[in-house]
Amino acid sequence: MDEGTKIMQPLWWLGHSLKVIDQTRLPGEETYLELHDLASVIAAIKQLRIRGAPTIGVAAAYGIVLGAREISSHSREEFQKGLDQIGQAMTGARPTAKNLFGAVDRMLQVKCNASEPAQIYKLLEEEATKIHAEEITATERLSRYGADLIGEGATILTHCNAGPLATTGYGTALGIIFAAQKQGKKVKVLACETRPLLQGARLTTWELRRGGVPVTLITDSMAGYFLHAGIVSCVLVGADRITANGDTANKIGTYSLAVLARENGVPFYVAAPTTTIDHSLSDGGAINIEQRAPEEVTHCQGIAIAPPGTPALNPAFDVTPHRYVSALITEKGVIREPDTDRLRALNI
Amino acid sequence: MDEGTKIMQPLWWLGHSLKVIDQTRLPGEETYLELHDLASVIAAIKQLRIRGAPTIGVAAAYGIVLGAREISSHSREEFQKGLDQIGQAMTGARPTAKNLFGAVDRMLQVKCNASEPAQIYKLLEEEATKIHAEEITATERLSRYGADLIGEGATILTHCNAGPLATTGYGTALGIIFAAQKQGKKVKVLACETRPLLQGARLTTWELRRGGVPVTLITDSMAGYFLHAGIVSCVLVGADRITANGDTANKIGTYSLAVLARENGVPFYVAAPTTTIDHSLSDGGAINIEQRAPEEVTHCQGIAIAPPGTPALNPAFDVTPHRYVSALITEKGVIREPDTDRLRALNI
Repeated sequence: MDEGTKIMQPLWWLGHSLKVIDQTRLPGEETYLELHDLASVIAAIKQLRIRGAPTIGVAAAYGIVLGAREISSHSREEFQKGLDQIGQAMTGARPTAKNLFGAVDRMLQVKCNASEPAQIYKLLEEEATKIHAEEITATERLSRYGADLIGEGATILTHCNAGPLATTGYGTALGIIFAAQKQGKKVKVLACETRPLLQGARLTTWELRRGGVPVTLITDSMAGYFLHAGIVSCVLVGADRITANGDTANKIGTYSLAVLARENGVPFYVAAPTTTIDHSLSDGGAINIEQRAPEEVTHCQGIAIAPPGTPALNPAFDVTPHRYVSALITEKGVIREPDTDRLRALNI
Repeated sequence: MDEGTKIMQPLWWLGHSLKVIDQTRLPGEETYLELHDLASVIAAIKQLRIRGAPTIGVAAAYGIVLGAREISSHSREEFQKGLDQIGQAMTGARPTAKNLFGAVDRMLQVKCNASEPAQIYKLLEEEATKIHAEEITATERLSRYGADLIGEGATILTHCNAGPLATTGYGTALGIIFAAQKQGKKVKVLACETRPLLQGARLTTWELRRGGVPVTLITDSMAGYFLHAGIVSCVLVGADRITANGDTANKIGTYSLAVLARENGVPFYVAAPTTTIDHSLSDGGAINIEQRAPEEVTHCQGIAIAPPGTPALNPAFDVTPHRYVSALITEKGVIREPDTDRLRALNI
């Protein structure tokens, strides 16, 4: 990690517990939580204290290490059964982010390589640390690839938060912006606030300002106005799950930005480590979209904004068909106009 | 007015003052203000206590009556000069809504028809009352025209608030929805919350629920998801200014809905009385878009949502090019695919 940049990491493995920054309290408060068991990690993911697809994946891996320590039996068979239950509980935390399922799968495969619970535990910890390190490296690499797509003086429109907090390491969309800045390009950012939970207003502005990148906040409804005005160089977002053909699930509102970008001739870029790609799904129609509590919509920062009893819907993600994606930026390279063949060709 | 529907009017002329409901306090509180002079009417318009293009027009007319009473001189010349100053002050209240300028123009023409200040004052009061009555009639008529475009079981997506509060009378977009319901059609509404000032969450839900129309609240960023999902029958919005070719300025976010509707084959309807049409502008490029305070974006209901000092932009309206408008619904008829010739042909 570059010590020169003021990057706030979302989590730290302490050997016996997982320390995380509570992302629901930012930017008002820097509150840290020390999670000692599986249940607290799952709860923190559900409550979005830990959020962002890659960060969720890393936290899930460490959560499984903590869970393994709670298994009382010392028979290998019982231990493995316990691990399977832990994996199931962990995958139930949130339904959309691919990284969660990928990390759980990797962790559960570890058990096959060891004969003793103590040995499995050690291997699990090593695997979680490896997953974490790989995510950091991936964001560093994809940030450099992506930075080459950003022009001098670019105005980049982004949505939700795809920075270090969301990813561990450098960030995906924001990692690219930081890397472009490091290349000496003067870039600036329009950040969509990202209702209902305001990750753009709360986290993206906070991370960019710490990193010295000029950022201007807008409401989600204003993105079309600025895209139509011709002042946006590109739209750049992260992803929660990408299917084999390049269809991309990301924070609700992303699809609208993609359509508006296309309509106004502005490139629309998706940045994600390959751990976000789900090869088991041929297209985005099969992605399970999380439906969250209506109170997140009828309230804003805990304050009611609608008459009591007003029904609300709250899909947390939407799917952008790959035809709207100008390029997919991964740590293995940039795929322009991604489709099934192009993703397959890059062997990712 | 139909006594059967629970329509809340936004203002009442009391002969010596203008009583208004404070729309910034709804739905939490029904607070009424009694405005006795020009300055308080202008302030209430600026602060959005009085809002919605047609309602602003009616309030401006009554505000001029109150202003005229404040003119101390009794010479006709001085009185007319005073009236011109009042008109200028009133048009400075907000820059986008056509109805404001239209109402001021009408009121200032009154002075030419009288020789005595006392007579002018009487004529001004009559003219304001007439403007008010005409707006009520216009919304009633356009609501009936528009209702014919709404199918049985329709799900209508709307933005901001274009109900009785915004228009006096029945409302434009919401007037049509109430009229469709009165025709016996089972309709339901998806209401976009309309950040930054949440007129959709606060006012549209409140008016529809009072009127017994099922309404579900969504964030502005979710509209694309539901349009793409194929569950929206049409998008129906009001307008703040419509140029000679049918380009439509309306609450920020409307343009995005129009593009997303077109992309998904969903009709996009604009409903407005002809007082909203500005024949002096050939197209929307010349519309003055109000830029409001950044604090409305960095805060939500008075609570800070971004780090202190974060810059924000706050255009209050956007312009939807007429090519996205499936039909313009006015009290003089429905204009499908509006353009300069079709608007001219209907003599509106």
